[in-house]
Amino acid sequence: MYHALIMAGGTGTRLWPLSRRSRPKQAIPLVGERTMFAAAVERIAPLFPTERIAVVTRQEHVDILAAQAPELPAANFLVEPEGRGTAPAIGLAAIHLHHHDPEAIMAVLTADQHIADTARFCLALAAAAEAAQQGKLVTLGIHPSSPATGYGYIQQGDPLGALGSIGDFPLYRVDRFIEKPDLETATYMVASGDYSWNSGMFIWRVDRILEEFQRYMPQLYAQLAELEAVIDSPDYQPALERIWPQVAKETIDYGVMEKADDITVIPVDIGWSDVGSWASLPELLAADESGNTVIGPHLGVDTRNSLIYGSRSRDGNDKRLIATIGVEDLVIVDTEDALLICPRDREQEVRRVVQLLEEQGDDQWL
Amino acid sequence: MYHALIMAGGTGTRLWPLSRRSRPKQAIPLVGERTMFAAAVERIAPLFPTERIAVVTRQEHVDILAAQAPELPAANFLVEPEGRGTAPAIGLAAIHLHHHDPEAIMAVLTADQHIADTARFCLALAAAAEAAQQGKLVTLGIHPSSPATGYGYIQQGDPLGALGSIGDFPLYRVDRFIEKPDLETATYMVASGDYSWNSGMFIWRVDRILEEFQRYMPQLYAQLAELEAVIDSPDYQPALERIWPQVAKETIDYGVMEKADDITVIPVDIGWSDVGSWASLPELLAADESGNTVIGPHLGVDTRNSLIYGSRSRDGNDKRLIATIGVEDLVIVDTEDALLICPRDREQEVRRVVQLLEEQGDDQWL
Repeated sequence: MYHALIMAGGTGTRLWPLSRRSRPKQAIPLVGERTMFAAAVERIAPLFPTERIAVVTRQEHVDILAAQAPELPAANFLVEPEGRGTAPAIGLAAIHLHHHDPEAIMAVLTADQHIADTARFCLALAAAAEAAQQGKLVTLGIHPSSPATGYGYIQQGDPLGALGSIGDFPLYRVDRFIEKPDLETATYMVASGDYSWNSGMFIWRVDRILEEFQRYMPQLYAQLAELEAVIDSPDYQPALERIWPQVAKETIDYGVMEKADDITVIPVDIGWSDVGSWASLPELLAADESGNTVIGPHLGVDTRNSLIYGSRSRDGNDKRLIATIGVEDLVIVDTEDALLICPRDREQEVRRVVQLLEEQGDDQWL
Repeated sequence: MYHALIMAGGTGTRLWPLSRRSRPKQAIPLVGERTMFAAAVERIAPLFPTERIAVVTRQEHVDILAAQAPELPAANFLVEPEGRGTAPAIGLAAIHLHHHDPEAIMAVLTADQHIADTARFCLALAAAAEAAQQGKLVTLGIHPSSPATGYGYIQQGDPLGALGSIGDFPLYRVDRFIEKPDLETATYMVASGDYSWNSGMFIWRVDRILEEFQRYMPQLYAQLAELEAVIDSPDYQPALERIWPQVAKETIDYGVMEKADDITVIPVDIGWSDVGSWASLPELLAADESGNTVIGPHLGVDTRNSLIYGSRSRDGNDKRLIATIGVEDLVIVDTEDALLICPRDREQEVRRVVQLLEEQGDDQWL
């Protein structure tokens, strides 16, 4: 059977002050009225019944996420005692799926990305399942709309035919994974047409990915095997709590994908954005004639090309006004208890603010 | 007897969003812990017992001001049905003082200015009273600490000797009043040493200022005389409400001071600031090593020469954090329901924001 795994363990510190420890990025309605997580669940409904949608997340976020997708069975939330990176998270889900369905195919999806064309996304996932069924390790590559330096890239190699109900999803062998490039390299790659962005979405049979763990991450594989042996028994939770702190932190990209020698990429054009930082929002929300992207009450005098993200009026009761005079290329994010102001081209430093708050022990704003 | 009149009828729209219709500038603790009005009352306590401190203000602000100076008798609040400028406000107070004490001397003071050296201020007021007793119309001129273009100036003419208990307050005949100058003119005036800033503070016998009203503003004088005739009678309030809307709006400067030909100025150096706008605050509040003036919780990354005016922690319970990255020369004023962001050199445009809110009928933020 075809299962979806929604990876929902992140925090999204670059979206502070809207994202917080207790309210991670995926629990926020950044684009539209639904939270990122609720949207991630809803967009795959045409392909996956709720009993085949699993979620991996941290203990501290289970409640807030479950509340946003009440249709998901509680048992489908796979809880990590603490985040250890994407490789262990995927491994944990893989053993659960494998335990109940040794021939399961899993689609590893993300909870904190925006996808505009959900219909084409579902078609791509269906096509990818066909390739996975044949034993391929598949990743969705994103058609690059700009020479972004904030994403990893995938170089497409030999074409491997096409799949999908109407045969319109070409497959390529992955030549190599490229870490976040400089602008010159990114520009070259986008112009060449042979590269996709690395989306972090993967489709494979669970037995195949467990084989890869065994080959490239044998320690993790052993830990997972020990856990799988006690799934559904009273020993599981104690074992998890004992083993997990010993699991090495690692990403699936570094731990498996960059080492495995037979990865398939399906480049797709699905209106994807990782909504990774405040700078990415104006691309998703409409700007007004002054180039401003505005949420909430705003009064601007000579204000241009700014993101003014205030409190939304869900109850029609606008409380706070943001007034700006002579402001350009600024990011202003106003929340109930914290306000961020920074130039658009420095918003990557938001992480520094979060880091400073941590160093100072200012937990109330984290 | 020597009486003080505190002019407290202003609104201070340039200090929006902290100043509001319901909370005018003088009712705000802009500098220090006391409100501007409470400070204005307290600083003259060495010279004026509370029964000789009168306040002129608008009906809508009586309660908030009275609450801040509970020691003042309620009858000492002289209420204008609506603001008609400084000339009618001073005239209204003059007839009340004259009615009860025809030989009264009045010191016309302001409720919304900061004075650092209150001791010297009181000495100057005492010296001015001596001159006023002799029939002079006296104004305090402020020793100009910079070529400010936001103030009016007073040109000093012939010296008229010195007054004060230790004879250290020289008097000059006023040559002329100069409206807000351009920077070149201001620079020349400050360098010459013959000019003071116009403080809007005046000391005179009430019979003398009423004579001047009779000469230069005969219509106002007639209206005031009609009112004085019914003070302390049940006819007063109806007469006030009938007459006041007919009173022409006028400033004391234009209506009397610029026309009268025998004005005395006492230049003083008392650490005066009109706290007229956000730009004036950094001069009064200490800046940190980055040149930032900060009220309330702030976390700055590469932030310089900015005014960050957040919520004060009166109860030690800091609620809102302002985080800034890569910000320079910015004014940020954060209040419970409105936020202002503008460059320091454009803060005079705050009035435009207030004007737009008025035009749009956004009363909740006015």
